[in-house]
Amino acid sequence: MQISNPNPTADDENQPVARRIQRLSLHLNPTPHHHPLNDHQLLLQTCARTKLTVDTTALSYYMRGKHRDIQEKVFDYFNSRPDLQTPVEISKDEHRELCMRQFLGLVREAGIRPFRYVAEDPEKYFAVLEAVGSIDMSLGIKMGVQYSLWGGTVLNLGTKKHKDKYFEGIDNLEYPGCFAMTELHHGSNVQGLQTIAIFDPMTDEFIIDTPNDGAIKWWIGNAAVHGKFATVFAKLLLPTHDMKGNSDMGVHAFIVPIRDLKTHETLPGIEIHDCGHKVGLNGVDNGALRFRSVRVPRDSLLNRFGDLSRDGKYTSSLPSINKRFAATLGELVGGRVGLAYSSVGVLKIAATIAIRYSLLRQQFGPPKQPEISILDYQSQQHKLMPMLASTYAFHFATLYLVEKYSDMKKSHDEQLVGDVHALSAGLKAYVTSYTAKSLSICREACGGHGYAAVNRFGSLRNDHDIFQTFEGDNTVLLQQVAADLLKQYKEKFQGGTLAVTWNYLRESMNTYLSQPNPVTARWEGEDHLRDPSFQLDAFRYRTSRLLQSVAVRLRKHSKTLGSFGAWNRCLNHLLTLAESHIESVILAKFIEAVQSCPEANTRDALKLICDLYALDRIWNDIGTYRIVDYVAPNKAKAIHKLTEYLSFQVRNVARELVDAFDLPDYVTRAPIGLQSDAYSQYTHYVGF
Amino acid sequence: MQISNPNPTADDENQPVARRIQRLSLHLNPTPHHHPLNDHQLLLQTCARTKLTVDTTALSYYMRGKHRDIQEKVFDYFNSRPDLQTPVEISKDEHRELCMRQFLGLVREAGIRPFRYVAEDPEKYFAVLEAVGSIDMSLGIKMGVQYSLWGGTVLNLGTKKHKDKYFEGIDNLEYPGCFAMTELHHGSNVQGLQTIAIFDPMTDEFIIDTPNDGAIKWWIGNAAVHGKFATVFAKLLLPTHDMKGNSDMGVHAFIVPIRDLKTHETLPGIEIHDCGHKVGLNGVDNGALRFRSVRVPRDSLLNRFGDLSRDGKYTSSLPSINKRFAATLGELVGGRVGLAYSSVGVLKIAATIAIRYSLLRQQFGPPKQPEISILDYQSQQHKLMPMLASTYAFHFATLYLVEKYSDMKKSHDEQLVGDVHALSAGLKAYVTSYTAKSLSICREACGGHGYAAVNRFGSLRNDHDIFQTFEGDNTVLLQQVAADLLKQYKEKFQGGTLAVTWNYLRESMNTYLSQPNPVTARWEGEDHLRDPSFQLDAFRYRTSRLLQSVAVRLRKHSKTLGSFGAWNRCLNHLLTLAESHIESVILAKFIEAVQSCPEANTRDALKLICDLYALDRIWNDIGTYRIVDYVAPNKAKAIHKLTEYLSFQVRNVARELVDAFDLPDYVTRAPIGLQSDAYSQYTHYVGF
Repeated sequence: MQISNPNPTADDENQPVARRIQRLSLHLNPTPHHHPLNDHQLLLQTCARTKLTVDTTALSYYMRGKHRDIQEKVFDYFNSRPDLQTPVEISKDEHRELCMRQFLGLVREAGIRPFRYVAEDPEKYFAVLEAVGSIDMSLGIKMGVQYSLWGGTVLNLGTKKHKDKYFEGIDNLEYPGCFAMTELHHGSNVQGLQTIAIFDPMTDEFIIDTPNDGAIKWWIGNAAVHGKFATVFAKLLLPTHDMKGNSDMGVHAFIVPIRDLKTHETLPGIEIHDCGHKVGLNGVDNGALRFRSVRVPRDSLLNRFGDLSRDGKYTSSLPSINKRFAATLGELVGGRVGLAYSSVGVLKIAATIAIRYSLLRQQFGPPKQPEISILDYQSQQHKLMPMLASTYAFHFATLYLVEKYSDMKKSHDEQLVGDVHALSAGLKAYVTSYTAKSLSICREACGGHGYAAVNRFGSLRNDHDIFQTFEGDNTVLLQQVAADLLKQYKEKFQGGTLAVTWNYLRESMNTYLSQPNPVTARWEGEDHLRDPSFQLDAFRYRTSRLLQSVAVRLRKHSKTLGSFGAWNRCLNHLLTLAESHIESVILAKFIEAVQSCPEANTRDALKLICDLYALDRIWNDIGTYRIVDYVAPNKAKAIHKLTEYLSFQVRNVARELVDAFDLPDYVTRAPIGLQSDAYSQYTHYVGF
Repeated sequence: MQISNPNPTADDENQPVARRIQRLSLHLNPTPHHHPLNDHQLLLQTCARTKLTVDTTALSYYMRGKHRDIQEKVFDYFNSRPDLQTPVEISKDEHRELCMRQFLGLVREAGIRPFRYVAEDPEKYFAVLEAVGSIDMSLGIKMGVQYSLWGGTVLNLGTKKHKDKYFEGIDNLEYPGCFAMTELHHGSNVQGLQTIAIFDPMTDEFIIDTPNDGAIKWWIGNAAVHGKFATVFAKLLLPTHDMKGNSDMGVHAFIVPIRDLKTHETLPGIEIHDCGHKVGLNGVDNGALRFRSVRVPRDSLLNRFGDLSRDGKYTSSLPSINKRFAATLGELVGGRVGLAYSSVGVLKIAATIAIRYSLLRQQFGPPKQPEISILDYQSQQHKLMPMLASTYAFHFATLYLVEKYSDMKKSHDEQLVGDVHALSAGLKAYVTSYTAKSLSICREACGGHGYAAVNRFGSLRNDHDIFQTFEGDNTVLLQQVAADLLKQYKEKFQGGTLAVTWNYLRESMNTYLSQPNPVTARWEGEDHLRDPSFQLDAFRYRTSRLLQSVAVRLRKHSKTLGSFGAWNRCLNHLLTLAESHIESVILAKFIEAVQSCPEANTRDALKLICDLYALDRIWNDIGTYRIVDYVAPNKAKAIHKLTEYLSFQVRNVARELVDAFDLPDYVTRAPIGLQSDAYSQYTHYVGF
């Protein structure tokens, strides 16, 4: 993340002109400078401040990713092309065509070529993806299908011959393509896929077949209308030596042309149907594909992790089906990174609209006095302020994830690969679940006007909903996080190293597994509760406790139920563990972001929302803390009280905090969320 | 609710033929018989049973409301008219026309005349409403606008002259009408409405005016396309004696023709615009209305609670604006009853689809064994089984509400009026919030196939979403419940009587405000945790505690903040109190329903889900119980463990429990939720 370079003296803060000049200079000299401050002292000191003023420009500047320029290029292009804006009401078929036109416009007119960034500069790719998704999430997903999924298989699972043949067409959209993995009967369990690819040594071809209805490829984006190719995941079957049977080499990926490049007619042996209307994302043409003895040349095998010679000999650098499968799926982790990142983008838009409207909307008030803003109600603060704090928290966490992913793509460091895998699974699951719930809360918090389609909560929710499912079902992904934690836990006791994000477990296991300290369990002062080390301790204590106890339970149950049965018996526990761990990572990254912020005002604002994020989470699981007496009753009550108070404080700077997301009105679009004249724009929209 | 009349001897249970005959006889002899059993003993005894078999027919029979016949008539009519079925994709304008055709078909072809039941047999009206809503929720709401709202104002706020003039046309749909209350700037705060109706004594007319943009009537159902009349809520202004000004008599209701009865043209002085596309319910034509000196005769005033004579003299049986306002709004409580009841209907449909699919869907499994149903995963049970239990709980609670409402309409007993008012507010808010969240959980629990529009979670969620807002915003309604509780609390200390549903507070206040019993706080046996008196005690303890503490806090804060400020400072607390109270009422009604069930098998099944409902709720707020040491750590853990175990047990009879909702496949409709051939119907739908 970028760090601004101010000179935070009190003198300077009192001179607006000097500040303005200084801030402008930041734009010219964006090199990050870290100020080694005494973090603990500094953070405690900010608690004491009462009057908080937020400098939106400085905060916004600190928040921004490196690639704001290209995001603005995306916004500007679509702002200049109102004909490409998705109307509130549009049929599925029209939406699909519009989405394709938007995509072609982006690539061929605006000159943005995201596919280049997939390989060379993933951070920039994700920035484009987020911006495009805020224009219309269908476009974001259509782009993701083309570049991350279809393009991603060519780049990551193929070899030079594939890149040479397909890169240009994928990049310039002459080769729209599909990622044909999911089947009617198999989504999460990819190893259970039933589509087969039998090698025919006589003709040097693979024969792709759908053996039964359950194996029909389902939900395949780009398949119903636009796709020319599909990367088809199928079990590779090789004829045995005596030619009497086949040996199953596990799931492999094959490039299969599905429509004629010129006529666009569906090719022989391929049956395509439209999956039809979806809850959202109707700009994406999902289809179902059945293969009947479709022959493709041997070169169609994406052969990075396993290859076949002309004489039918299989070779691989990886020793087993499971290892090859893991390597194959491991390359597809970028999709999850993109979803986590884009999900925060959606949350920013929704929170901005809901909070701006809650400031504008007035209803009831003290007797004989003017009505008050609904954001002045404690209940509305309760709905929206922890959400705003979470949005900031997720912003820093997903920015960190994108950086890690980018590092991984460059270094291929094995430990980093594992870390990014678990972190992307966990953040994708946690953030998308949170955003999905928040979109419903935002709609409800905006009452009747939140129900007008033009105010966007409906389409944002419907489009985002599936983020919880695709690229890995959230419940399945959290189990991967839990499994990884257990692996690290075991390795720790065998003296192994821990992945970077897991590092805290090393100390916490030793420190926390003794009984909670009955003295600190009673501390209830604001300074203590706002001390980041208390907050982190609380989060990590919970995670460590959950990890240790689930390890014990798994060991116990596996004796009678076997490992699968034991896992299932502890499943809720494991999911809570995974969420708790991800929350710990998010808090740690947020605290780092606060501490790295060099400008005092901005740091104070971030500290305030970080405290709200931390204490709200602790309060939400106060039962767990009380059961183990980690907090005494008086402390629990103090946490609750302080959470409400911090929500109230955040409300006082809520306008500035959403302004700092820096979303222009033509991106948020909802009339009720406009920065000025919201009501009159709304009546105008309706026809008055 | 109806009670079946079996003869539950063990002997009988072992004779299938005899049972079948006996069950058939129930249908012929549906008179309820209560069996005075020793409830406590009986309920504990059911805990001991291990093998549970559920007789779907008997359970379904016990569950049914009195008016299943007319619901089946609705289902049969629409099943016979596939041309009236709402397609998955339909434009707003087509949907509105289809919805009107559905409505006309229901009333004029199927011969169902719901408006008659509004007055004479509200239970039957709500049964029709629920059934119609399950065909298309837009139709349910369109019907509610016509009969509960527009018709309701004529029936409940008007006098004989209005009924004589409008009843027939409302009933047979020749007079489609609107309920024009909400304005752009005022929804919840009805007393803040700004539309005015000035009496002109010269012409004996009212002049209706929209004084500013904020006073435009907004979201008015039936206004954009079909409405001929509107009941307009406006401040009645009477010229003062000296004719120099006006005196404000408060909000009154006026019947205003808005379109020509023959030409359907908008009448002079009235400007109507379409509110446009909504998140859901696009079959309902919501419009915005502006009035410019629209003159209506004096008879247009709905004059039950306040009347005006030819010479401009205002008379009312009620002494103040506030009393009249309360009486007016009090008559509109039926809408909330209908929403709470219909919301449970939506929850039943969604739970049925999600649970049937979770039984069908298989994914992963123990090594080298077949895959298992996803409902066998603890995480899926955690998502869906407490939801199934809640559906049953809400079923009995809303059935009770409908009965109470019906009694109230007959008796006009003042205490009953207050009780129904608070109960309908609380149940509407609690149930619709729960259903809204559950619809998202169901979609997510069904993964990708849950995202296909044909599988209905999207439209159910989008249509139901606004249930949380209209007929009283849930956050506002819960405050009414809290206010009522505080009123009752004060009256108790002044020796007054308590409303029926509040009765438990009398004892609980005295019993519970002492310290929790440190001995029972440690009891963790299954018999104890499944004892309804423990469960009720826990719920009521929580409510009493919240009530007593908020009363103290309000008194304290009102000294410095005034009553409005104090209320706002305690708002989250008050909302929790209201929810806690409603949960207590729901549990009490569920326990009664279990105890009244005469057939052992069915009673056992209900007892099991009632226990799950109770313990899941206690666990969800375990923090509160721990903070006051009402439960010790060992007991908290035992509650958690038992909740997971009960979810597992409910899973084993989940199919029977959803079957007992008795929703035919042509009502649930979702291919993935069909009772047989779900996958093949689904592939067939897509075109294979």
